[in-house]
Amino acid sequence: MPNPTAAMLVIGDEILSGRTRDANMHHLAGKLTEHGIDLKEVRIVSDDQGAIVTAVQALTGAYDHVFTSGGIGPTHDDITADCMALAFEDHIDIRADAAALLQAHYDRQGLEFNDARKRMARIPDTATLIDNPVSVAPGFTIQNVHVMAGVPSVFRAMVESVLPTLTGGDPLVSDSVRIDRGEGDIAGPLADIAQAYADLSIGSYPFQKDGKYGANIVIRGTNAARVADAVAATKAAFA
Amino acid sequence: MPNPTAAMLVIGDEILSGRTRDANMHHLAGKLTEHGIDLKEVRIVSDDQGAIVTAVQALTGAYDHVFTSGGIGPTHDDITADCMALAFEDHIDIRADAAALLQAHYDRQGLEFNDARKRMARIPDTATLIDNPVSVAPGFTIQNVHVMAGVPSVFRAMVESVLPTLTGGDPLVSDSVRIDRGEGDIAGPLADIAQAYADLSIGSYPFQKDGKYGANIVIRGTNAARVADAVAATKAAFA
Repeated sequence: MPNPTAAMLVIGDEILSGRTRDANMHHLAGKLTEHGIDLKEVRIVSDDQGAIVTAVQALTGAYDHVFTSGGIGPTHDDITADCMALAFEDHIDIRADAAALLQAHYDRQGLEFNDARKRMARIPDTATLIDNPVSVAPGFTIQNVHVMAGVPSVFRAMVESVLPTLTGGDPLVSDSVRIDRGEGDIAGPLADIAQAYADLSIGSYPFQKDGKYGANIVIRGTNAARVADAVAATKAAFA
Repeated sequence: MPNPTAAMLVIGDEILSGRTRDANMHHLAGKLTEHGIDLKEVRIVSDDQGAIVTAVQALTGAYDHVFTSGGIGPTHDDITADCMALAFEDHIDIRADAAALLQAHYDRQGLEFNDARKRMARIPDTATLIDNPVSVAPGFTIQNVHVMAGVPSVFRAMVESVLPTLTGGDPLVSDSVRIDRGEGDIAGPLADIAQAYADLSIGSYPFQKDGKYGANIVIRGTNAARVADAVAATKAAFA
């Protein structure tokens, strides 16, 4: 059986403007690979209702799982939860279970559970909460979409909460062979190897270092023995 | 007149598997912001014909410009040029102008211009070449899609070749105010400021440092005086 598939939707103007570098995508990609879920697509859109709704509607039907990051805090630009309700035609309001978690959290700190903070308890009716051990305000899963925070420490904690609940496939095994010759020299024999091991994914990632060309050949698959065979064949071809 | 819009399409299994972190997106985002072109969406897809063709067809009609990175080298997994021809129903083969550039380049180095290297001269008939001062093999522009290499040094050089040919808008001015209070405390007044300066983009990016919460309020717009006013109003509100 093929592995489950996934997409990620990153919500954030700050990445599109070049102000910050996304860290969550790289983290999630690694975790999904370990868990045997194939990340097939990532989209980054701005904090815009139309863009978010369109993207989530496209991704929810195309992949087994969708993971989102960003836009679930208390400020005016945090519109992700409302967009999810809109995308799935669900009702949304301050939900008692989420509000109770947050009320207790702010009571402990002697802080007011004000209107802005109550915004973080806005959860669509049909969603289930995702535990946030870092800062309490929960994420949620609606249908096959897992809605998580953008702050990296919170995003990571939510990924740890969600992943064990998902059925994974065979973890991907990968190995790589570094070849200190230009891709133009190795492409022919490499294509033959890729054809002989068509059940594996064989990619060539060129680099330039100190004016010299080289390539890392990355070989991936779920069958470790086949990956090892292909690595040996690649080393032999370019020895 | 609103600024031109853009999307980026990153082609690369190695990013989706978590093996490497994308660097080109962050670079392009910053360059486009300087040039007054608004990057609205980024998609990352795998080295898969269907995925690439579908993405480029969706993006070409939705934005003024599309920038792609990756998949234009000499190896079997470099399928971007052929996918572009397919997406735009254009004919593709080894093109004389690109082949002449590469032939001269390999002649100078005493290397054979072999079949794999000739693959890098496969350019759709209607495309115009993008200069590559780093490693000669050209990128190309087909309709509103600028097809560039994935290797960061080459990608950057191609961005420098393309950007001056594009009409930009007003460069975005941005400034930020750091507030050492949790978003829940500042969200109310901040929403009022965002409403008063609805012509600007005002985003709140929370952080956690040494167990304390804070937020960077980022204010962006094309009118520097308005941005300065909003910065002052934000500082005054949270003094």
